[in-house]
Amino acid sequence: MAKKLLRALAGEAVWPPPMWLMRQAGRYLPEYREVRAQAGGFIDLCTNPPLATEVTLQPLRRYGFDAAILFSDILMLPWALGQGLRFAEGEGPQLPPIRDEAGLAALDPARLPGAIEPILETVRRLSTTVGDATLIGFAGSPFTVACYMVQGSGSKEWDQVRLMAWCNPDLFTRLINLVTEQTIIYLSAQIDAGAEAVMLFDSWAGVLAPSLFRAHVIAPSARIAAAIRTRHPGVPVIGFPRQAGSMLGEFARATGVQGVGIDTSADPVVAAREVPAHVAIQGNLDPLVLVAGGEALARETDAVLAALRGRPFIFNLGHGIVPQTSPEHVAELVARVRAA
Amino acid sequence: MAKKLLRALAGEAVWPPPMWLMRQAGRYLPEYREVRAQAGGFIDLCTNPPLATEVTLQPLRRYGFDAAILFSDILMLPWALGQGLRFAEGEGPQLPPIRDEAGLAALDPARLPGAIEPILETVRRLSTTVGDATLIGFAGSPFTVACYMVQGSGSKEWDQVRLMAWCNPDLFTRLINLVTEQTIIYLSAQIDAGAEAVMLFDSWAGVLAPSLFRAHVIAPSARIAAAIRTRHPGVPVIGFPRQAGSMLGEFARATGVQGVGIDTSADPVVAAREVPAHVAIQGNLDPLVLVAGGEALARETDAVLAALRGRPFIFNLGHGIVPQTSPEHVAELVARVRAA
Repeated sequence: MAKKLLRALAGEAVWPPPMWLMRQAGRYLPEYREVRAQAGGFIDLCTNPPLATEVTLQPLRRYGFDAAILFSDILMLPWALGQGLRFAEGEGPQLPPIRDEAGLAALDPARLPGAIEPILETVRRLSTTVGDATLIGFAGSPFTVACYMVQGSGSKEWDQVRLMAWCNPDLFTRLINLVTEQTIIYLSAQIDAGAEAVMLFDSWAGVLAPSLFRAHVIAPSARIAAAIRTRHPGVPVIGFPRQAGSMLGEFARATGVQGVGIDTSADPVVAAREVPAHVAIQGNLDPLVLVAGGEALARETDAVLAALRGRPFIFNLGHGIVPQTSPEHVAELVARVRAA
Repeated sequence: MAKKLLRALAGEAVWPPPMWLMRQAGRYLPEYREVRAQAGGFIDLCTNPPLATEVTLQPLRRYGFDAAILFSDILMLPWALGQGLRFAEGEGPQLPPIRDEAGLAALDPARLPGAIEPILETVRRLSTTVGDATLIGFAGSPFTVACYMVQGSGSKEWDQVRLMAWCNPDLFTRLINLVTEQTIIYLSAQIDAGAEAVMLFDSWAGVLAPSLFRAHVIAPSARIAAAIRTRHPGVPVIGFPRQAGSMLGEFARATGVQGVGIDTSADPVVAAREVPAHVAIQGNLDPLVLVAGGEALARETDAVLAALRGRPFIFNLGHGIVPQTSPEHVAELVARVRAA
């Protein structure tokens, strides 16, 4: 019998739903903080197969989640293409921003295969150790990766990115195309190494006007989903266009993905109406109600379960788990979903 | 014959649509920068009736917009309640955060009437000088104002606010209720001083899970709209739940507002379907395509016009105009909308 999460992504209304949590390998776990302290920098951890394998598996040991998601970062792609990347403590990622032809030309796709090798080695190790869990590989969506590549750091409004998209559409489109092609190579390599499903994280999709959303979120995601379908028939793709809002249904229909993540702000009742019935919905408990715990956690969990019961559905948060989350609250959540 | 903007808010499909731009009195205008330089700090400008009147009128002189919006700030309400507020250059607003009973108890509604007097004086002056334009008063929505009051500064995720809403719902609800009551008093006073419509800016509505959105965005907005309807029959209320996404239709139906603003990320075609036909939609050109100008500006303007033609509609941006916008691009935009 296929794994629960893959059955949901094949369109089956599995009940109780398979579950995992975005950023489930993370600082809320003491065993993660211990490994993190040994690892040197964050990039060192992402490129250290024994340690990256270990932290990926930690939440499975504690909670028996239905998925293991490769421990890595969406910015490992620009890093692999030679764009300098550093994670300054408490500041978030910093990259030398790409603003012109020279910045684009400096990216070096020839570096990618060698650079991602330690990440693929982590996937290989995981593929023999995840057991009943589904091994999910991932990448950032081209738009969100391009956001960091152009802005050079995190941002609330991503004004430099949107300005480039409007003022220099040719340059921006070539950047998106390059990232799209490299993402296909990267995800395809993860699948060859043992990933059973792949996810595209599009954290900043919600800042775009509809025409830019169609050009730079939907079209590249559709291209990636089509390439995975051709090269790896049967391997599902989950898209997560965070804050897609009114564009969610169009995203689900037009990209051909097998699953869509919905963020905390989405009403799951509306999402269930907008997303085609054969596409799995993944989400969307507020990570902060998991911090709160108690009655609010129980009530909100039940609301998500009730809204998405009877259709293909993967229980998850609407955004990554936060560091101050109590591991006991996670255990309560798992028990409640399992008993649904 | 009633003013164009008021006709749209009464449910009429006025064509070409009335138009104004959020933050139309702002740093993109050289004449604004000149007044701003004379004014001292930003709060000084908001509480200086001659100068606040002058900057409110500047964009009307240049462009003949259909609305003048009081020059002020959503944080003038907590300021009027005695919560210390300062605008640090290049840092955004800073307030001593409210995190407990003592913080809530320190707010002093008795200060409000005196503190807002210079703002009301600006409204009075404007009411005799706006001519054919509609004078719009405004406030932040209780949730967005509470965001700053609790977090103490701008934030991407507003985690302290959402945590308080989940972990201490009683305290948070009392804060929202206090802000709601004071907002009714504040908006009612603006109407008494001459405002012909009022708008509620809810910049951060999009971070909330659906149940919190219903409790802290929809319910307070509905309460404010009902109070204005009772005290000032015929004075329309525009709600602007930015990034409301899948909650937009419910917001429009459940609050009883006469107009809803939609942000840049909203597909106006979907909004036209979700928002009841008698409620005006206001929006939603990307402020950054106004920076870009040219062919992209013309195309995107036409797309918004086409999507919302035939229903009550007020042309606007999806977010505030940005400082680097060329005043010539604004003139092009106005000409294009007027010629629609």
